[in-house]
Amino acid sequence: LVPRLRPFTSTIFADMTALAVRAGAVNLGQGFPDTDGPPAMLDAARKALFGGANQYPPGPGRPELRAAIAEHRTRYGLHHDPDGEILVTTGATEAIAASLLALTGPGDEVLVIEPYYDSYAASVALAGATRRVVPLVAGPGGRFALDVDALRAAVTPRTRAILVNSPHNPTGTVFTRDELAAIAEVCVRHDLVAITDEVYEHLVFDGEHVPLATLPGMAERTVSVSSAGKTFNCTGWKIGWVCARPELVAAVKAAKQFLTFVSGGPLQPAVAHALRHELEWVERLRTDLVAKRDRLAAGLADAGFEVRPSAGTYFVCADVRPLGFADAEELAWRLPELVGVAAVPVCVFTDHPDEWRHLLRFAFCKRDEVLDEAITRLRQLR
Amino acid sequence: LVPRLRPFTSTIFADMTALAVRAGAVNLGQGFPDTDGPPAMLDAARKALFGGANQYPPGPGRPELRAAIAEHRTRYGLHHDPDGEILVTTGATEAIAASLLALTGPGDEVLVIEPYYDSYAASVALAGATRRVVPLVAGPGGRFALDVDALRAAVTPRTRAILVNSPHNPTGTVFTRDELAAIAEVCVRHDLVAITDEVYEHLVFDGEHVPLATLPGMAERTVSVSSAGKTFNCTGWKIGWVCARPELVAAVKAAKQFLTFVSGGPLQPAVAHALRHELEWVERLRTDLVAKRDRLAAGLADAGFEVRPSAGTYFVCADVRPLGFADAEELAWRLPELVGVAAVPVCVFTDHPDEWRHLLRFAFCKRDEVLDEAITRLRQLR
Ligand SMILES: CSCCC(=O)C(=O)O
Ligand SMILES: CSCCC(=O)C(=O)O
Repeated sequence: LVPRLRPFTSTIFADMTALAVRAGAVNLGQGFPDTDGPPAMLDAARKALFGGANQYPPGPGRPELRAAIAEHRTRYGLHHDPDGEILVTTGATEAIAASLLALTGPGDEVLVIEPYYDSYAASVALAGATRRVVPLVAGPGGRFALDVDALRAAVTPRTRAILVNSPHNPTGTVFTRDELAAIAEVCVRHDLVAITDEVYEHLVFDGEHVPLATLPGMAERTVSVSSAGKTFNCTGWKIGWVCARPELVAAVKAAKQFLTFVSGGPLQPAVAHALRHELEWVERLRTDLVAKRDRLAAGLADAGFEVRPSAGTYFVCADVRPLGFADAEELAWRLPELVGVAAVPVCVFTDHPDEWRHLLRFAFCKRDEVLDEAITRLRQLR
Repeated sequence: LVPRLRPFTSTIFADMTALAVRAGAVNLGQGFPDTDGPPAMLDAARKALFGGANQYPPGPGRPELRAAIAEHRTRYGLHHDPDGEILVTTGATEAIAASLLALTGPGDEVLVIEPYYDSYAASVALAGATRRVVPLVAGPGGRFALDVDALRAAVTPRTRAILVNSPHNPTGTVFTRDELAAIAEVCVRHDLVAITDEVYEHLVFDGEHVPLATLPGMAERTVSVSSAGKTFNCTGWKIGWVCARPELVAAVKAAKQFLTFVSGGPLQPAVAHALRHELEWVERLRTDLVAKRDRLAAGLADAGFEVRPSAGTYFVCADVRPLGFADAEELAWRLPELVGVAAVPVCVFTDHPDEWRHLLRFAFCKRDEVLDEAITRLRQLR
């Protein structure tokens, strides 16, 4: 294994899910739903499967999917030409990897907001660039907030790009318009490219999702990334996309076309259907997730955790110290055996583990009985 | 776009297919079949779609698929532990990109046999390594053969890996046991890793497919790559895999997990079905392709091309000089307009375009009426 990848041999999701399976634990670690997406979407996939959609789709993605993505972006007032300004990818993961590989390299610095989804650091390393982290800080009510001064201070003459994930995994923070404006100001002032991870764009419970690309000066410098997995309960399909100006899309495509060429042939028309016709289904999903967040948050509080606010995503974070634990990472590795629940320690998503060592991330995108069973089990920690 | 990717902004397949579509040409450029795979495979995908296989499969791939891949490899006398020695990827493209990103880096040289599939050069560049090409040479009967002396001469102290594609795209060469033994000898002597692209393993018309990993000393140093696309007529599914010793698979996985994490959730069980139950279907496909190769080769000869032998793959190469053309690349770009047929110039797969400028590659994985129409149109060149 080459040196640049040595810090990245495993992922917490694979490891924790494997442990959960071995221990027969309720898995609130990896974020994936345990129910299917819209029935008509599955039906559209079936039709594509038997309707001749099994060979290579076009490199940028099937035209009907690109058209549906463009149409979907108009809800934010954003307009993209399906030919040249949209690229279908193998989930957001590939979109982010390809963006970093295309736009950054040795000598470049990439700003990453901490805690960060694990693939960001690995992709920055694969690109040969250097990450500089900007930690979130405790804001009002315990919300994880952007530290605007820290962001400004992290910029150097070598800074080339910033990765912005909102709604934010693992904290559940949804960046406010003010926070996004501060990010935009830094990007414009220092001529940075913003790569956004907006895969939870529809799963916002408090506030609203504002795409960074809608802010002044940002449309021309933002690579907006999203995907179908979380919006339509099809995380295993890995259909994602990039929206950006033609030069940026062309750059990302240069990398993407050699990572996977294309993928998910017969699943692409199904996602096109979903984007066009299933947003009411998504609204019900969102409402359900609000209730699930509240259910799990209440259960965690009841079990003795100090629960931090989550305004979006699949996740809620909780402080383990009130239960008498000092090290949430150690606890996470013991929890499946101890009480039969799996969660993910937040510190593994950071460069400063000691400052985040008290937090566990729990996924609430599960059936109510699963959440209730987890809560019952977690009460044993008292 | 970072400098390392600047030579790779477009792919000939996307460009030529786009041109074919615009010109209403018969597309014998990009290699994909125009009929579906085994009906029961499509049915298995349907069952998976409605049977709860829509969330993230495990990082290494679904267990039933890894088991089926391991079982399939036993036909060659190769034994792999499905847990740790097999990794499911987003087609062979991702497998090759991840292998190079994981195993090679700046300062390393990678041997690439010329002509080479376009993603190889791009992936070597993405890894920051340097490619050294070893050209195939005209052997008996015009067969493109390995130049063993050139191979030996290309090794330097910095050589780290070799990419070996057999059956070979674009030439249709199937490496003989002697050729493979020469490659193996070089690998063992110089402690190289071999990354094989065996996606056409089942599409051999003359001779037999010998996996490089079966040669003495090679099992421990070969990353064997294959995929379902060409074997089961599902090129758009992009389900591929890597088989290798645990240390090598772990390295490839370190890169792969951050390129796409996973993909093709509900398609994975279908490929498992196909590998286990559809090899008779594949044998019929192979027999059909023998006839298609012969049909197209005869038609091309009749149209005035000098046809080179093809022992496998989807492709046959033909010399355009007997028709009075000097530059097959220029001809390829004109051909869709000129007679309504698209083909791919071989020189774009090389570092020495002038030495390959007389060859066009034609795909014969098409319905007979399509091939006949192409032949009729190509006769106009006379
Ligand atoms: C790649 S596993 C990821 C699921 C997920 O997004 C998460 O759990 O954070
Ligand atoms: C990635 S497009 C490729 C199809 C193919 O394998 C080829 O035409 O060579």
